[in-house]
Amino acid sequence: MKLTILGCYAATPRTFTNPTSQVLEIKNRCFLIDCGEGTQVQLRKNKIKFSKINQIFISHLHGDHFYGLIGLISTFSLLNRNNDLYIYGPKGVKEIILLQLRLSNSWPNFGLHFYELENKESELIYEDEKLKVKTIPLKHRIYTNGFLFEEKPDKRKLNVEAVREYQIEKCYFQNIKNGKDIVLDDGTVVLNSQLTFDPEKPKSYAFCSDTVYNEAILPIIEGVDVLYHEATFLQSEEKLAAKTMHTTAVEAATIAKKAQVGKLILGHYSTRYSTIDLFKTEAETIFSNVLLADDGLSFDL
Amino acid sequence: MKLTILGCYAATPRTFTNPTSQVLEIKNRCFLIDCGEGTQVQLRKNKIKFSKINQIFISHLHGDHFYGLIGLISTFSLLNRNNDLYIYGPKGVKEIILLQLRLSNSWPNFGLHFYELENKESELIYEDEKLKVKTIPLKHRIYTNGFLFEEKPDKRKLNVEAVREYQIEKCYFQNIKNGKDIVLDDGTVVLNSQLTFDPEKPKSYAFCSDTVYNEAILPIIEGVDVLYHEATFLQSEEKLAAKTMHTTAVEAATIAKKAQVGKLILGHYSTRYSTIDLFKTEAETIFSNVLLADDGLSFDL
Repeated sequence: MKLTILGCYAATPRTFTNPTSQVLEIKNRCFLIDCGEGTQVQLRKNKIKFSKINQIFISHLHGDHFYGLIGLISTFSLLNRNNDLYIYGPKGVKEIILLQLRLSNSWPNFGLHFYELENKESELIYEDEKLKVKTIPLKHRIYTNGFLFEEKPDKRKLNVEAVREYQIEKCYFQNIKNGKDIVLDDGTVVLNSQLTFDPEKPKSYAFCSDTVYNEAILPIIEGVDVLYHEATFLQSEEKLAAKTMHTTAVEAATIAKKAQVGKLILGHYSTRYSTIDLFKTEAETIFSNVLLADDGLSFDL
Repeated sequence: MKLTILGCYAATPRTFTNPTSQVLEIKNRCFLIDCGEGTQVQLRKNKIKFSKINQIFISHLHGDHFYGLIGLISTFSLLNRNNDLYIYGPKGVKEIILLQLRLSNSWPNFGLHFYELENKESELIYEDEKLKVKTIPLKHRIYTNGFLFEEKPDKRKLNVEAVREYQIEKCYFQNIKNGKDIVLDDGTVVLNSQLTFDPEKPKSYAFCSDTVYNEAILPIIEGVDVLYHEATFLQSEEKLAAKTMHTTAVEAATIAKKAQVGKLILGHYSTRYSTIDLFKTEAETIFSNVLLADDGLSFDL
């Protein structure tokens, strides 16, 4: 699981900072999460191939989270993309994109599919054989969702020495990986646990931006390996955070601690701060495993 | 008159090139022409104050000419702009902007005025005491206008020595600047030409992008001081230029020559070329005074 931060600053793109966008590579899928203005250039700078992106998740319709979407779709089109593109985002995103494509008379050659969200409860919005994605309803000034990416358990791992010892033929291997016991020719039952190892523990990643401090998300994100949580402000701006429905670093760390997550990554910093170091310092007073997102940074998780 | 090129490359923003946007400073006004994705960052990089921009002219609704507009308006709003903003562009631009502002629940505090264009003839769209702006109907794949910026003649310049010699009182100076003759107390008529110098010749600037080679614009741009004309392709891609309704450098130079303009600035280069030098070389076979636009370049005209 690899997370690349294309942008993690709040409000407006600036000379050296970019609005929210990130790429999650997980189980050989490549998911784009949010798409602020300039995301297509950030993808280029970070050498992420456009063709790898087939699903885009948009948290909410504030500009710093989706103004780059129409440009990215248009560029995909100009580059003669063929693969279908799936967009998951708040109701309205389809109307915005289609209106612009219609007025520019630039209909893409690839299939463009919208999965519009309006549910206020967590829901499953994507599933394939390897993983699933659920929404994390957040509390912000407009309708907003975070996204929970969960790997499905892998099949059990074959204990090559054991199957050799019992002289089990290859045609049974798939059954064994699927957890089945084996009956030998002499009627002996060999338990699956004797023939396999446990698979790697499935990983999970939760993206939560933008939101006010909100304990309602705890049951959804409980125990995730990695939580990206917005921390727009330091504790000195606690009241401003509440007023603008954002979170402080301490509050984000409190969510991480209560949800017993593995790692906390902070981001969505207000551009009022000249350095982001204090976000880590303040968060670590509550929760020990804190990482700071920054534009262009990759995390191997 | 100063022209700052924020971006002058075609199709898509890339790591080191930006889509079309430029700032024309003329008679203490600051006009933004086109607004591709990333324009707000280019304004910052080129140290152009957001507050100076009150009029934005959009040539057409292809993404590389206007996808940065919604972001710029939103940033103006976040920065608590007060001044009204006037946007001149093809019919549809208002619907696109208002839909996004409505769905993000981010209505600006300043007045936002749209002057939507659908006329296929040249028309006067802006006028104040110092200058006027007319459309230049262009031929492209969708409805497109260039823009002609024309200074109005300044008042005549007072010949300080002459008015002193005739002992003319200050209260008449305004009339003299306005071109009036003066009758002295003894009945002598002093002609205005004896009391004033000619003002500087009014300057003019024509922006023409995107368009196929189109001689119909010649009467509108005839004799302008500076013509910015798109030159998306070199002559080797002449057929592709016609097919995509763009212009080659040679064709742009032919327009400049036939319109007897002062200077030709080329831009809107296809990103297929690793260097832009050949655009100048090819254009100069037809017209001698050729400049190459490039991102971040300023021209004092």
